[in-house]
Amino acid sequence: MAYNAVETITRKRDGGRLADDQIRWLIDAYTRGAVADEQMSAMAMAVFFQGLDDRELGVWTDAMIASGQRADFTGLSRYAVDKHSTGGVGDKITLPLAPLVAACGAAVPQLSGRGLGHTGGTLDKMEAIPGWRADLSDEAMRAQLDRIGAVICAAGAGLAPADKKLYALRDVTGTIEAIPLICSSIMSKKIAEGAAGLVLDVKVGSGAFMKTPERARELATRMVGLGHAAGVQTVALLTDMSTPLGLAVGNALEVAESVEVLAGGGPADVVELTLTLAREMVAMAGLDADPAAVLASGKAMDVWRAMVTAQGGDPDAPLPVARHTEVVTAEASGYLTRLDALGVGVASWRLGAGRTRKEDAVQAGAGITLHAKPGDPVVAGRPLLTLHTDTPERFADARAALAGAIVIGPTPPEPVPLVWDRIAP
Amino acid sequence: MAYNAVETITRKRDGGRLADDQIRWLIDAYTRGAVADEQMSAMAMAVFFQGLDDRELGVWTDAMIASGQRADFTGLSRYAVDKHSTGGVGDKITLPLAPLVAACGAAVPQLSGRGLGHTGGTLDKMEAIPGWRADLSDEAMRAQLDRIGAVICAAGAGLAPADKKLYALRDVTGTIEAIPLICSSIMSKKIAEGAAGLVLDVKVGSGAFMKTPERARELATRMVGLGHAAGVQTVALLTDMSTPLGLAVGNALEVAESVEVLAGGGPADVVELTLTLAREMVAMAGLDADPAAVLASGKAMDVWRAMVTAQGGDPDAPLPVARHTEVVTAEASGYLTRLDALGVGVASWRLGAGRTRKEDAVQAGAGITLHAKPGDPVVAGRPLLTLHTDTPERFADARAALAGAIVIGPTPPEPVPLVWDRIAP
Repeated sequence: MAYNAVETITRKRDGGRLADDQIRWLIDAYTRGAVADEQMSAMAMAVFFQGLDDRELGVWTDAMIASGQRADFTGLSRYAVDKHSTGGVGDKITLPLAPLVAACGAAVPQLSGRGLGHTGGTLDKMEAIPGWRADLSDEAMRAQLDRIGAVICAAGAGLAPADKKLYALRDVTGTIEAIPLICSSIMSKKIAEGAAGLVLDVKVGSGAFMKTPERARELATRMVGLGHAAGVQTVALLTDMSTPLGLAVGNALEVAESVEVLAGGGPADVVELTLTLAREMVAMAGLDADPAAVLASGKAMDVWRAMVTAQGGDPDAPLPVARHTEVVTAEASGYLTRLDALGVGVASWRLGAGRTRKEDAVQAGAGITLHAKPGDPVVAGRPLLTLHTDTPERFADARAALAGAIVIGPTPPEPVPLVWDRIAP
Repeated sequence: MAYNAVETITRKRDGGRLADDQIRWLIDAYTRGAVADEQMSAMAMAVFFQGLDDRELGVWTDAMIASGQRADFTGLSRYAVDKHSTGGVGDKITLPLAPLVAACGAAVPQLSGRGLGHTGGTLDKMEAIPGWRADLSDEAMRAQLDRIGAVICAAGAGLAPADKKLYALRDVTGTIEAIPLICSSIMSKKIAEGAAGLVLDVKVGSGAFMKTPERARELATRMVGLGHAAGVQTVALLTDMSTPLGLAVGNALEVAESVEVLAGGGPADVVELTLTLAREMVAMAGLDADPAAVLASGKAMDVWRAMVTAQGGDPDAPLPVARHTEVVTAEASGYLTRLDALGVGVASWRLGAGRTRKEDAVQAGAGITLHAKPGDPVVAGRPLLTLHTDTPERFADARAALAGAIVIGPTPPEPVPLVWDRIAP
């Protein structure tokens, strides 16, 4: 059947359903270059407004998977369970989580990306560890999974190349926020990776792509449906991203906080979210380990050290430190009622922790440390945040991003739950 | 002020107003290539869904005009009045209208285009006349206007180059139908051309871009507003395009029908629309000629002959005739209740009267002659349409386009008015 780009775009634009073959043709033709970027960006904008129904979304996601290789971990001695976060500020959970779940007995393949925009990337964080390498061959990755149980590495270029191309296009055309395209982007890669189970951490709030619980719930529900349809056990948690996770935002700063958690300490919210996600993954793998006990035993730290070492990193080497710091003090006494995730994320990005273009390098030491979280009492003139950077001319821009992000009031705010909801098939 | 393409797209996508400078930046940056095609197509799709308000539309149109040269006809001895049709099937009105209004005393500069898709182009029709040339220098055009009063020629490349680029992009990205973009495309060229008055013939119905009176009225109202704001006297008529105009569709076939009208004959609907538009243009020019009397006097035919001759054409040469014809007969007796403009337009296009790509040539003789119009009695087995082409293998495709386009019933249909409405500032 011969399809035509303009007819396909206008059909979706006018609220019609695309035929299965039409979607397969579109994704394949776009990957080959027969459908042009300017046609696909118009299509993406039409999908932003008109959506994709469940059948269209399933076929679209399958077509993205079919554009590349599909791996599987069925040959491993352990059950392979994966976790994906939709991205937030201070979200270093993968770092303590992967070794913890491996220490409980599962295999945790974390094929990760680099950060773009105000949310950090897991690979950028791990690369703050001296010597650590993100690129592993497929064989090395599988061997490490079998032997140590956890691996954090770069996703191979062979996974869903259609998504790679489409994501780069959406990034420059204002079409990132279309829910079906977010779903198919995440799930095509996760299904192609081949884990048997998947736990999704869908962030809600100012620092997340999904600003409201309704949109986050829609995203989560549709991703769980896609995973289930593809034979992957999938569960999603909706978790708060109105304020940063933990007390550290930035690459080396977040590695240090993760190591604190593995050592039995760390901020309460990071520990709570790590354990909540670990319990989901352990249950999915059919294991009866208790993640809290395993964390307390130090076995997760052992796996972390083995995992870092296996990829060339030195777990005992001092982490990079930024050359300059500046303190932001409280403007009033009272309670910190809001510390906006987006404002802190953008400030950290501007300090050098993130990149504007794919080609940019990040500063390992840049970022922000928090001295108070929403609900804490604060005193006028005392430190609230410390800004870290190698390039002090960036302090002014970072402070500008924080304007309006810090609110101090006379009474403590209503506590916000860390986990909003759980979505299962 | 520095603007950013993604922020501009997402602002419109999310229903925000664009600032005046932001629109000027966008159009200029797109014309220069600093905003990429894939960004502008996403923007066009966002405008399809979110629209442009009157202020945005005015600035957008001004920015398109500012991308090129702006002509004016103030040096002419006659009042320059222009007519634009949004395009339909069998719409040859420009051919008798321009010489008629010139014979009444105005100057009629018709800077026209070639056809794309199922609607014919005025230049394609005129080029069916042996020897006639569409390309004139600016000086030759003005001299002809002053001396003869009418000119039909190709628009220069210097008029609104931003529109030229954006129109080509919209054509391949499913974004033609956005009303503000149609308005700004038409009006930027018409205002840049520099006529003092403009009559718009906005087509409504299956063969038009605007399928409903509501959409046609919106388009007409906004174009009249834009013309008025730019100091051009502007009036719009909404006219029927549910069935073809006249009895001839195709290039040479429509020239022959236009010459019949100039000779005092021709189908009633073509005569009526020509006279209605002529009265508007004559009134706008402040002349007191009666177009019906001028047509009957033969003076319009004299202008036609002078106009064709001035551009190298021979008004007495026989027109090209297609090498093959095939007759479509009535399948039943009764009344022709529907003869769908879109079906006839697509069939004529497939016979060779139109082009699929800009580079294609058209067949001068191809097209369709109608032996009945809606409301006429028809007899089973008698000719209803004659198909004309040089390439008989196209008959089958043309007949396929006519499936469902011809409806015969036991009673005559309700008559449809030729002119639905008139929109003035």
